[in-house]
Amino acid sequence: MGTTPFPELSTPSLLLEHPVLLRNLAGMRRRAECLGVRLRPHLKTAKCAEIARLAHTGEGLTVSTLAEAEYFFAAGFADLTYAVSMLPARLERTAALLRRGARLQVLTDDPGVAQAIAAASSRLEQDFEVLVELDCGGRRGGVQPDGPELLRVARILHEAPGVSLAGVLTHAGQSYHCSSVAAVREVARCERDAVLRAAARLEAAGLPCPLRSVGSTPTATHAENLEGVDELRPGVYMFHDLDQLALGSCGASDLALTVLSSVIGHNRSAGRILLDAGALALSKDRSADALQPGSGYGVVCSPLPCAPLGLCVRHVEQEHGIVEVPDPAWFERLPIGSRVRIQPQHACLTAAAFPRYAVVEGSKLRDLWQRTGGWD
Amino acid sequence: MGTTPFPELSTPSLLLEHPVLLRNLAGMRRRAECLGVRLRPHLKTAKCAEIARLAHTGEGLTVSTLAEAEYFFAAGFADLTYAVSMLPARLERTAALLRRGARLQVLTDDPGVAQAIAAASSRLEQDFEVLVELDCGGRRGGVQPDGPELLRVARILHEAPGVSLAGVLTHAGQSYHCSSVAAVREVARCERDAVLRAAARLEAAGLPCPLRSVGSTPTATHAENLEGVDELRPGVYMFHDLDQLALGSCGASDLALTVLSSVIGHNRSAGRILLDAGALALSKDRSADALQPGSGYGVVCSPLPCAPLGLCVRHVEQEHGIVEVPDPAWFERLPIGSRVRIQPQHACLTAAAFPRYAVVEGSKLRDLWQRTGGWD
Repeated sequence: MGTTPFPELSTPSLLLEHPVLLRNLAGMRRRAECLGVRLRPHLKTAKCAEIARLAHTGEGLTVSTLAEAEYFFAAGFADLTYAVSMLPARLERTAALLRRGARLQVLTDDPGVAQAIAAASSRLEQDFEVLVELDCGGRRGGVQPDGPELLRVARILHEAPGVSLAGVLTHAGQSYHCSSVAAVREVARCERDAVLRAAARLEAAGLPCPLRSVGSTPTATHAENLEGVDELRPGVYMFHDLDQLALGSCGASDLALTVLSSVIGHNRSAGRILLDAGALALSKDRSADALQPGSGYGVVCSPLPCAPLGLCVRHVEQEHGIVEVPDPAWFERLPIGSRVRIQPQHACLTAAAFPRYAVVEGSKLRDLWQRTGGWD
Repeated sequence: MGTTPFPELSTPSLLLEHPVLLRNLAGMRRRAECLGVRLRPHLKTAKCAEIARLAHTGEGLTVSTLAEAEYFFAAGFADLTYAVSMLPARLERTAALLRRGARLQVLTDDPGVAQAIAAASSRLEQDFEVLVELDCGGRRGGVQPDGPELLRVARILHEAPGVSLAGVLTHAGQSYHCSSVAAVREVARCERDAVLRAAARLEAAGLPCPLRSVGSTPTATHAENLEGVDELRPGVYMFHDLDQLALGSCGASDLALTVLSSVIGHNRSAGRILLDAGALALSKDRSADALQPGSGYGVVCSPLPCAPLGLCVRHVEQEHGIVEVPDPAWFERLPIGSRVRIQPQHACLTAAAFPRYAVVEGSKLRDLWQRTGGWD
């Protein structure tokens, strides 16, 4: 069995393979350069200042909550896009951050919210930069690129003193449901088309559109042409995960994040090995299992080197991950107290269970990096 | 629309309805009294000292991690059972807590671990109380009540100086997969039978069995007879959730936990309302949706009084909950900025996303109670 891998760490712990992180960051930076667009990394997955320092390209960051915006501003990142619909009740908190010197672009798809932003700008004596969110087929937030609401929202923003119409933004969430690279490419075309069509309509109506922003890891990976697009906002590419692997966004050696877990039990009569990483540590996400049956709640790997063992976490209870083993020889191969690494289905959700990353390189623990989280 | 419900709180927030909590606690206390067993509440769901103070019956607490054991000991609870298989690597941390004055019963189902506990007792000069875990049909941890390992493990523990064989413990996790109350009753019978059969075998072999411990919320709720059992260890009964409702462990008015969420968008062309409680706030647990289709990732309720609106969170993305509305009238009924409450599928996972409970009674915010979490 040899020595315990990562003896400094208790289990479950969240491991981040530093060289893989760096390679993933460099890969997306090159993608953006080749495509001729700026990269504004989305930190919703990483939620960590050290990772932002490695990922940023000088073109700002994207965040998913105001808590993240405050955290990254405090860490020295002044140029931020809050890529979830602005709520009127959040404008005071936004204004407080702007007054402290942040540039925080916000977004809306709603005429009423646009009016509330205009009113808040006047009431709070605070300028706001606002992007109009577009629905490019993901059926989440956003106005239709060809519908009447686009011009209505944009005009309210443009005409309000203290408010700048900053451009258009979309996120092709439907790329997560594609079953082939060809389908992802088609979604990437829709994503680009949506911002280009919307921008053309704004300009034809005499409205400015200084920014055309798109982004999801699958479309950023497979887009063939982003001409006319200014900015990319992928997030999970930093780590990748089984879901991105199944979607074809990465290769098997690009998964930077794993959960270090101990074997805590053998149920020989049930043919099961029990791990101490359950639903709380791994999440109940099973995205990739639909695309790639057999990955369960995560793929079980040897700890060093990290390589799939041909087993998955088949069931999870709160603190138990349950692995069904096809052969009792596995009980000798994975004795109680031995350690495995589990590749997560969905890095965003698995990372959220942990307060920090154990940053590793091979067998060496390089560092511990804290994560932020929550909404307050 | 009237005033904003819970104006002191941002969204998403975790609301705990205080009178429902008290009623659920009293209900399980009465159940235990009627059944003639002690109640050792499992704090894995609540993870909160204030709730432990209300839930405890003077018979100790159950915990799911050593971090929880340390937290509850620091909060004044000295009598604890750590109800997940002990790992040899965790014995020093366990011993440290024992030396500080805790009574912490631990469990194993493995002869090798039993020997490691014996060796640690001698090496660390520390007594340990150890329960033998039984598999009563859940196929997670535990020796078979009728198999040879029971006596083997028990004998190692009993014969080791400094180690007490504290009894037998089982958890009928299969109760979570029952589709009728009759099936839960049958599981409760198996749970009791397992500890009674095992205890009888230990005693027949001249080994002590001072404690027979069982517990899961469904079986605790529906067991008809626990004669011969000493202790019950349910956990989620404090809050209940859609899963327990579907299992018949509670009624619709017994769900103490909800997520307060804001409507952040209307996608009229997709017929969707967007909430700010997504996969991170609700978890991706869909337990009850299998038993009770139509509950999605949570049931959407009016905020005050909290009552189901006939809608569910159909899809989740990281920070978005997506509600499909059958009629555009919902866009007027739930305008952007309005608030809803979402009943969670699985309280244990939803609560884990939040650092605290906003304890409410009707429209009044009574208190904020911090939660513990993680493994360190």
